[in-house]
Amino acid sequence: MRRLWTGDYYNEGNGKDDIFDKLKEECGVFGVFGHPDAATLSYYGLHALQHRGEESAGICTSDNGVFHYHRGMGLVKEVFDRDHMESMPGDRSIGHVRYSTAGESKLANAQPLVFKYRGGDLAVATNGNIVNAPQIRRDLESKGSIFQTTSDTEVIAHLIARSPKELVEAVKDAFAQLVGGFAFLIMTNDRLLAASDPHGLRPLVLGRLGEGYILASETCAFETIGASYLRDVQPGEILVLDKDGLHEERYAPLERRAVCAMEYIYFARPDSDINGINLHASRKRMGQQLAVEAFVDADIVTGVPDSSISAAIGYAEQTGISYELGLIKNKYTGRTFIQPSQELREKGVKMKLSAVRKVVEGKRVVMIDDSIVRGTTSRRIVNLLREAGALEVHVRITSPPFANPCFYGIDTPDRRDLIASSKTIEEIREAINADSLYFLSKPGLIESIGGHEDALNRGLCLGCFDNDYPTQVDFEDAKIGCGCD
Amino acid sequence: MRRLWTGDYYNEGNGKDDIFDKLKEECGVFGVFGHPDAATLSYYGLHALQHRGEESAGICTSDNGVFHYHRGMGLVKEVFDRDHMESMPGDRSIGHVRYSTAGESKLANAQPLVFKYRGGDLAVATNGNIVNAPQIRRDLESKGSIFQTTSDTEVIAHLIARSPKELVEAVKDAFAQLVGGFAFLIMTNDRLLAASDPHGLRPLVLGRLGEGYILASETCAFETIGASYLRDVQPGEILVLDKDGLHEERYAPLERRAVCAMEYIYFARPDSDINGINLHASRKRMGQQLAVEAFVDADIVTGVPDSSISAAIGYAEQTGISYELGLIKNKYTGRTFIQPSQELREKGVKMKLSAVRKVVEGKRVVMIDDSIVRGTTSRRIVNLLREAGALEVHVRITSPPFANPCFYGIDTPDRRDLIASSKTIEEIREAINADSLYFLSKPGLIESIGGHEDALNRGLCLGCFDNDYPTQVDFEDAKIGCGCD
Amino acid sequence: MRRLWTGDYYNEGNGKDDIFDKLKEECGVFGVFGHPDAATLSYYGLHALQHRGEESAGICTSDNGVFHYHRGMGLVKEVFDRDHMESMPGDRSIGHVRYSTAGESKLANAQPLVFKYRGGDLAVATNGNIVNAPQIRRDLESKGSIFQTTSDTEVIAHLIARSPKELVEAVKDAFAQLVGGFAFLIMTNDRLLAASDPHGLRPLVLGRLGEGYILASETCAFETIGASYLRDVQPGEILVLDKDGLHEERYAPLERRAVCAMEYIYFARPDSDINGINLHASRKRMGQQLAVEAFVDADIVTGVPDSSISAAIGYAEQTGISYELGLIKNKYTGRTFIQPSQELREKGVKMKLSAVRKVVEGKRVVMIDDSIVRGTTSRRIVNLLREAGALEVHVRITSPPFANPCFYGIDTPDRRDLIASSKTIEEIREAINADSLYFLSKPGLIESIGGHEDALNRGLCLGCFDNDYPTQVDFEDAKIGCGCD
Amino acid sequence: MRRLWTGDYYNEGNGKDDIFDKLKEECGVFGVFGHPDAATLSYYGLHALQHRGEESAGICTSDNGVFHYHRGMGLVKEVFDRDHMESMPGDRSIGHVRYSTAGESKLANAQPLVFKYRGGDLAVATNGNIVNAPQIRRDLESKGSIFQTTSDTEVIAHLIARSPKELVEAVKDAFAQLVGGFAFLIMTNDRLLAASDPHGLRPLVLGRLGEGYILASETCAFETIGASYLRDVQPGEILVLDKDGLHEERYAPLERRAVCAMEYIYFARPDSDINGINLHASRKRMGQQLAVEAFVDADIVTGVPDSSISAAIGYAEQTGISYELGLIKNKYTGRTFIQPSQELREKGVKMKLSAVRKVVEGKRVVMIDDSIVRGTTSRRIVNLLREAGALEVHVRITSPPFANPCFYGIDTPDRRDLIASSKTIEEIREAINADSLYFLSKPGLIESIGGHEDALNRGLCLGCFDNDYPTQVDFEDAKIGCGCD
Repeated sequence: MRRLWTGDYYNEGNGKDDIFDKLKEECGVFGVFGHPDAATLSYYGLHALQHRGEESAGICTSDNGVFHYHRGMGLVKEVFDRDHMESMPGDRSIGHVRYSTAGESKLANAQPLVFKYRGGDLAVATNGNIVNAPQIRRDLESKGSIFQTTSDTEVIAHLIARSPKELVEAVKDAFAQLVGGFAFLIMTNDRLLAASDPHGLRPLVLGRLGEGYILASETCAFETIGASYLRDVQPGEILVLDKDGLHEERYAPLERRAVCAMEYIYFARPDSDINGINLHASRKRMGQQLAVEAFVDADIVTGVPDSSISAAIGYAEQTGISYELGLIKNKYTGRTFIQPSQELREKGVKMKLSAVRKVVEGKRVVMIDDSIVRGTTSRRIVNLLREAGALEVHVRITSPPFANPCFYGIDTPDRRDLIASSKTIEEIREAINADSLYFLSKPGLIESIGGHEDALNRGLCLGCFDNDYPTQVDFEDAKIGCGCD
Repeated sequence: MRRLWTGDYYNEGNGKDDIFDKLKEECGVFGVFGHPDAATLSYYGLHALQHRGEESAGICTSDNGVFHYHRGMGLVKEVFDRDHMESMPGDRSIGHVRYSTAGESKLANAQPLVFKYRGGDLAVATNGNIVNAPQIRRDLESKGSIFQTTSDTEVIAHLIARSPKELVEAVKDAFAQLVGGFAFLIMTNDRLLAASDPHGLRPLVLGRLGEGYILASETCAFETIGASYLRDVQPGEILVLDKDGLHEERYAPLERRAVCAMEYIYFARPDSDINGINLHASRKRMGQQLAVEAFVDADIVTGVPDSSISAAIGYAEQTGISYELGLIKNKYTGRTFIQPSQELREKGVKMKLSAVRKVVEGKRVVMIDDSIVRGTTSRRIVNLLREAGALEVHVRITSPPFANPCFYGIDTPDRRDLIASSKTIEEIREAINADSLYFLSKPGLIESIGGHEDALNRGLCLGCFDNDYPTQVDFEDAKIGCGCD
Repeated sequence: MRRLWTGDYYNEGNGKDDIFDKLKEECGVFGVFGHPDAATLSYYGLHALQHRGEESAGICTSDNGVFHYHRGMGLVKEVFDRDHMESMPGDRSIGHVRYSTAGESKLANAQPLVFKYRGGDLAVATNGNIVNAPQIRRDLESKGSIFQTTSDTEVIAHLIARSPKELVEAVKDAFAQLVGGFAFLIMTNDRLLAASDPHGLRPLVLGRLGEGYILASETCAFETIGASYLRDVQPGEILVLDKDGLHEERYAPLERRAVCAMEYIYFARPDSDINGINLHASRKRMGQQLAVEAFVDADIVTGVPDSSISAAIGYAEQTGISYELGLIKNKYTGRTFIQPSQELREKGVKMKLSAVRKVVEGKRVVMIDDSIVRGTTSRRIVNLLREAGALEVHVRITSPPFANPCFYGIDTPDRRDLIASSKTIEEIREAINADSLYFLSKPGLIESIGGHEDALNRGLCLGCFDNDYPTQVDFEDAKIGCGCD
Repeated sequence: MRRLWTGDYYNEGNGKDDIFDKLKEECGVFGVFGHPDAATLSYYGLHALQHRGEESAGICTSDNGVFHYHRGMGLVKEVFDRDHMESMPGDRSIGHVRYSTAGESKLANAQPLVFKYRGGDLAVATNGNIVNAPQIRRDLESKGSIFQTTSDTEVIAHLIARSPKELVEAVKDAFAQLVGGFAFLIMTNDRLLAASDPHGLRPLVLGRLGEGYILASETCAFETIGASYLRDVQPGEILVLDKDGLHEERYAPLERRAVCAMEYIYFARPDSDINGINLHASRKRMGQQLAVEAFVDADIVTGVPDSSISAAIGYAEQTGISYELGLIKNKYTGRTFIQPSQELREKGVKMKLSAVRKVVEGKRVVMIDDSIVRGTTSRRIVNLLREAGALEVHVRITSPPFANPCFYGIDTPDRRDLIASSKTIEEIREAINADSLYFLSKPGLIESIGGHEDALNRGLCLGCFDNDYPTQVDFEDAKIGCGCD
C-alpha cells in the first residue's frame, strides 16, 4: 500500500506538482511606522498578503530602537501565536511573506533578514529579483564577504554595510548598482525606508492609519486593517520615515514606468488596486476584450478558479453566454495535504480541482484561464471537462503567449519549458486538447488594464510576452526568478 | 498590549464569532465497501466533504474483519498523515467529518465511534439529529446503560446492542424508535450498512468505483475519487453490503420525502447533486427568481462569498445589472487564526470579509445572501459596503425568513435569537441597515430547487421557514441541533 | 539509507524493544478533594507518578458538580499546558497516568474515563487488573452492554450503572464481583471514592494538604506537593469523601494482606514508602542481603540504572567492594527517539545504556539487577560489560527467579517467554553469559522488605516467584497483565 | 486561578529559575569523516552529548561536496526525525548541540552555521568562547562586515573568508587572532578540520569507526556509536581530514595545557574520559579527598543529583558513613514542564528535586554538591533537607569557591552575583543555612583530578577559583560566557 503514497507531501506550487504548474507567487512586504500596534497590524496585513507567499512569514518590530523578531515556515496564522505578538512590542515594524521551495536551508532565507553592521541594527524585507545579483555576490565574495542565505536581501545588506556613507546615501549607492525589479522595506534603529526599483516593476503602496504610516505590497492590506490609501511608491523613489515624518527621496530619475503585467493578470488580489486600477475590474475587462476578439458559440462560460473568475464573468456578460460553475477548487487543500500518487491519479483521484459533471455534461464550454506555462495544467483541466461530458472545450487566455522567462521576481521555468516559446498556437491547442484556443492580444491586454489611458504613464512590463525587458539583461548570466529564494 | 488579544483564538463558526453567525455545517459521512484502497479513498472522500465539518475527522477500516481506526481534532489533512494511512489496511471503511464546538471532551465525540458488543465489533458514523434522543437516553440509563459521549451515535449503538435479534433486524428495530433526520453508516466485522431517516432529510448517495461501492453525504466526493453515481439512498431505506453484494432493505415506508431545503440553499457544495439536482444550478435559479420577485434598480450585484456567488450571478444575468466582486473573503482564515479583539475591530481591522472600495464606491449595490440568522452578520456586511462608499445597499435573501429552529441536524440558535422569529421584515431591514430587503418566497424557493417538478416527489423540509416539520416534535423536550455534538 | 531506519520509533517499554524487556510500569492514580488548586496539584502529583506510566495522562476535575477533563497521549508535561489547567476549575479531581502500547485506539483508553449514567456523572481511574474481567464483559455484553475501550475501568462503570442501589452500595456490590488486584478512584457529582482490592495488591495512600484530602499511588506525590501522609488505604476498604468529610467503609474483610513484591523491588520510586517502608532503604537491604547470601570476590560493584543503584550500593557497603559507575543510561532517550536499526546495533550503536570502559576494563564486576524476565536484556548488558573489558561478570538479582505471569497489573509476557519458567539457574547463567548468577532467596527478600516484622501484617504477593496467588485464578480464562490497557 | 501560572514555562537552566542556578552547559560538537552513515552517527553522537546543550541541535552533511543540513530548537530527538536523516546523505558531517537562552532570534544561532564564501561552502560548529570577539567584531564591522547571529562562529567564518590564503593557512591566520577557549569543527566541500584553542580549555577527542574518523567533545559519544578512542586533540593543534587521510597541523606551540577544571567537576558525563582520566573516577576521588580534608561525624551522606552522586559515594566509602538517597530528582522534568508559581512553591510544591523524608528524618546529613554559584540553590536544597527532618546538614563542595567569571565558554553570572566573590565561607554557610560548609582545597582538587600526575602535563584552568586565567583577559572589554549564544 505504501506505493500509493510515494508522491511527496503536496505543497501548493512547489514545482513538483505538474498539474498545478501555475506561475509562483513571489513575496509580499508590509511595514508600519508610528502606530502602537505595529506587530498586530503586521499580522493582519501579512495575512491579507498571504496569496503572495505561503511558505514562510516573518515580522521584525522596533521598540525604541530595540529589535524583536520572529520568522517561521508556514502561513501567517501558523507561524505566529499570541505569545509571539506580545513578545514583539514597538510602534514600527517590517514584515514579509515568501513563496519558496521547501527545506530547512530555506528557513534561513525567511525574511525579514536582520543584521548587525557598523551602523547598528538593520532589518530588510524584499519582493522581487535582482538580475545582476550573481555578479554582485561574486564581487562581494572576492572581497571577503560571507553569505548565509541565497536571498538577494543579503546582497543589499552587504552593499549598505560596505558603504562608508550615512544610511540614506549608502542605500542610494547600493540601489544604483542593482538591476532588476523589486520593492524594499528597510528598518534601522531610528528609521524606516521604502523603495521601488527604477521602473516600478513590483507594487508598493503607502497608506495612513491614525498617526502612523503603513506600507504594503497591495492595497488589500489597507482595507483589512482600516488604513487609508495615500499613493503608490514611485519608480526610483525612496521614502524615508523618521521622527520628523515622511521624506521623499529619489535615487533614479523616473524614465519609463513598467509595472509587471502579470500582477494585473494573475498575482495581485482582485480587491487590490495598482496605480489606481482595480484588479477585479481590469480582469473583467480582459474577459470582455477576449469576447470581442475571439467570440465562440457555446453553451456556458467557466473560469479556472480562483484567478479567472472575474474574467469569465466578463466574457459571459459580453457574449450573453451563461456563466456557470464548471470547475470547482477544494479550498481546504494546503501544505499538509497528502498528494495522491501517480497510480491513484490514474485511477481518477483528483487533487484540488474538479469539473462539475451536472454543469458541463453535454455542453459546449468556454474555459477562461489567465496563462499557459508548460501546458500540462491546461491539458489536465481540459481533460477534466471532457471526462465530465463537455462536448467542446474552447480555451480563452487573458494574456498573450507566455514565451519568455521573468527576471523580476516571478519564479518561471526555463525558457525551454515554456510551451509558447517553441510551439505555435495551433500546436499548443493540440497539446492541451482544446477545440479552439485564443490568447488575448497585447493591445487588448494593455487596453484592458489601463482603460483608456496611454501606455506611458501607466506603462507595463510585458517582457514575458514580447521579450522586451525594461532593464538591461545579460542573458548568459542573469538571474531568473525570485530573489527571496 | 495583551488587551488586543483578549478575544479567543478564531475558530470558524464557533459561535463566539458574532460577525460570522452563519448556520453551522453539520457532518459528513463516507464509506467504502470492496475496494483495496479503502483508507486512501476515505481520505480524499472526506476531504471533499470537509465543508460539512471542520472540527474533527475519523476513519475506521476493516481488514478481514479486524478494525483499524484513527480519529482526531482538525481538518482531514491535519488529522491524517501517511503513517496513519498505512496503518489502516482493509477493503472497507467508514469515515466522518464533524462540525462541533471545541474542547477535549469533544474528542471523545469524534466519529466513527467504535464499539465492542455481543455481536463483535461495531463502527458507526452519523450525520443528523435524533429528536427524541433525550428520552431514549433516559430510558437506556434507567436500564443501566452508561454513555461516554453526547453523540446520538452512541444511542444507536446501545439500541442495536440491546436487541436480541440479528444485526439487520436489530438495526431496523432501533431505527423504528428514532424520530429525526439522519444518515447512518454502520460497519460490522462482515457487513456495511447505510441508512437514511424515513423522510430523507439528510443526503446520502451510493456510487461505484471499480468492483467496490462508495457511500457519501454528497456526490462531490464521487467526482474527487473518480467514482460513478448510482443513486440517492431512499428515505426509510437500509442498504446492506456483504460478501454477496448489495441488498436493499427498508425499515419504514416511503411516505413523504422531505429533504432539508438548507442543503440546497447553503450547506451542500455547489458541484454536488441532491436527488439529481445540481446545487450551483438551483442556487443560480434562486438568484434569478429573486430578480423576478424583487427587482431593484442598481449599479452592481454582489454575492456574499462563498455560498451566494451562484445566486448573485443568477440575479445579475436575469436583471442585466453587472455582477461585480464587491465583497471578498480571505481564504487563508482558519482554525489557528487569531481573531482581532473588539478594540481592534473598532479600529477597523477586518476579519475574513472585506468590501472592495474601488468596486462599490458611489454605487447602488444589490447584495445577495442565503439567509439571515441573528442579523448581526448581515448588519456588519451591509456596513462594510457602506463604509466602502456604497450609496445604497439592497439585500436579497435566497430563502424565506429563518424563524424556527432545526431539529434535524443544523446547529441553530434558540428561537428567541432568530431575528425573523420576532421581527417584521421592515424591522429586520432597519436592524441590518439596508435600503431594502427581500426574502425569496416559499413558492419561489420550491420552484428554484425543484425546477418544474412537483413537490411530492422532490419534497422538501421547510420547517425552519414555515414551522411545518415532517416528524412529530415535542417542543418541550425535543433536541435541537446536531446529534454528533 | 532507509534500511538504517527500518526499526520503529523507539518507545520506552513498548515491547518491541527486546533489549529493554523490563517489566512494564502499570499505572498511577492521583486524587484531590477539597482543595481549590485541584487541577494544578494533579499536574504535579501525576508528574511525580510519571514513572508508573508514560503513555497517556488525564485529569478530570469537578467544579460544583460540573466535570471538566482533558486526556492525551504522552507525558504529563506533554499532555497539559497552562490553558488546560485554567479550563479545569474545581476543588476536587481524579487523575491518571498509564503505561500502554501505542496507537490511537488506545487514546480511547486514556483515563480517567468519564461516563453519564442514571446517577449523573461518573469519572473512574484505576491501577491494576481484574482477573475475571473477560467473564464479566461477556456477561455484560450478553445483557446488551457496549464497550468503547478495552479497559477494566469500563467494566466497573457498567457494574455500578446497572446496580439499582445508591452509589456506595452499588460500588460495594460491583467490587464484590471482582477478582484481582487494583486501586480505584471514583468521582461523582458530589463524592470521591477510593478503594483497594481485598488484598491490597496495588499501593494507594491517603494524605492531607490544608483543608483537603489527597490520594495517590505513592507517597512521593505527597512530598512533591507538600502534602502530609495520613495512612495507606487498607485492603478491602472504601474511603468516601463528601461534604461531611471522610467516611471509612469496607466491602471485604481484611484477611490476608498481599502487597505486590515487585512494587518494592522495582516499580515504586525509591523515595516512596509503602506501608511505612521506604523503598530505597528496602532495596539497599536487598543488596546487603545478596552480599550475605552470595558474596563473590570482585573488584567493583555496579548497578543497572536506575532501579538497581540502591541495591548495588548496599552490596558494596556490605562487602567493602568499591561501588562504581560501570553502566550509564542516557537520560534523554524517550518517546520520539529513533531506535537504531538492527544493522546499526550490530555495528555497535548503543541505545540508552552504555558500559563505562575506563571503569570496568580489566575488572571483575558484580552487576546488580532487579529481575530477569526473558533474559535478553541481561545478556546484552553482560555483553556490554565484557566488550568494555570486564574480566568477569557476576550477576546478582534482587529477587527470586521470575517464573510466573502476573494477574494483578504487571504487563508480563507469556509464561513460556519467562526464562526462569523453563530453565535452571545454571542454564540462565549460561544464557546471559555471566560468570556466576545468584537470585535473592525468598526469605531474604521478605526479610529485606519487611525488616524484622512478621510476614502476616506486612504480607506480600510473591505469586510471580512462587506461583502462590492471593486470589483464585482460573488459569484457562484469567486475564494477565494490566487492566488499563 | 491564572495567578498560579504566572511563572513562565519551565526551562531547564534558563536563568529565570533561581532554584536551579547551576552553571550552564555550554555546547557539544560531533564530526564524521569517511563513514557512509554520517547523519545517523551524528544523531546518536549528539544524543550522547545532549547534556552539553539542550536548546538547539543541528547536523550538516556533505555528499560529494554538496551540503545538506537541518537545525532546530530542542533536544536531538525532537529536532530530527527519520525524514531528516534520509534527506542528509553523505559520508562526512559536523553536528552541534547548544545551550542557550530561548527565543527565535536564537534559532538563527543554531549551529552548524553554513556559509557561502569565496572558497565555496563552509560549515562551522564550535564549543567555547572567544574573549576578544567584541573587538574582532567591531573591527570587521568597520570594514563593512554584517552579522546575522551573535555567535562567535560567525566571527571565525568572516576571518577565514577575508583571508586571501588557502583554507588551512587562512584558518591558522584566523586562529592566531583569537583569544579564548574553544573547540572547532569546520567542514568545506572537500575537507574537515578540527581544532582546539592554544591551551586546550575545551575537550575534543579523535576516534575511529571502521574506515572513518570521528570527532567529539567527549568520549562518551564514541562508546555510544561503537567507535574506538585514538587521542585527545592537542592544544593549538589543527587536524585536517581530506581524501588523503589525516594530517596533523599546528597553529600555536604547546606551552601550557589548561583544561577547564569544571569539565572534570561538573560538565562532562561521568563515563567520559578527558586526557585519559575518567570523570566518574575523578569525581569519586574528589569525594574521598573531601572526606580526608573535612570529615564530619554524621549519619548519612547524600549527593545532589545527578552530578554529585559519584563524589558522595566516594565520601561515603572513605568515611564509612552510609551513602543514602536523601535527595531525588524527577527525571521527567524538561522543556515543556510548567514551573510552579511562587505562590505554589510557597505552598510547598516542589519542582524537580525532593528530599526523601524517610531517609533523612532525624539524621545528621552530609550533603555533597559540586559548586555554589549564587547560593540560592544551595539554600533551597539545605532547606528541603531540613523540612524533611534532617537534624544537621553539613555541606561539602567538590571544588574551591567559585569567585570569578568564566571567559572560556561557561555561562556564569556577573561577578557580583557569585556569592563567593564577596562573602567569606562562614557568611556563605550562614546564607545557605548549613551547619557546616567546606570547599575542596585547590591542591585537593588538582590531586583528585590528576591522580598522582604532575600539573604540567595535565594542567588545568582554575581561573574561576583563583582568578589566574591562561590567556590575556582585558577585564573591561572581554566577553564572558558562551560564544555560541
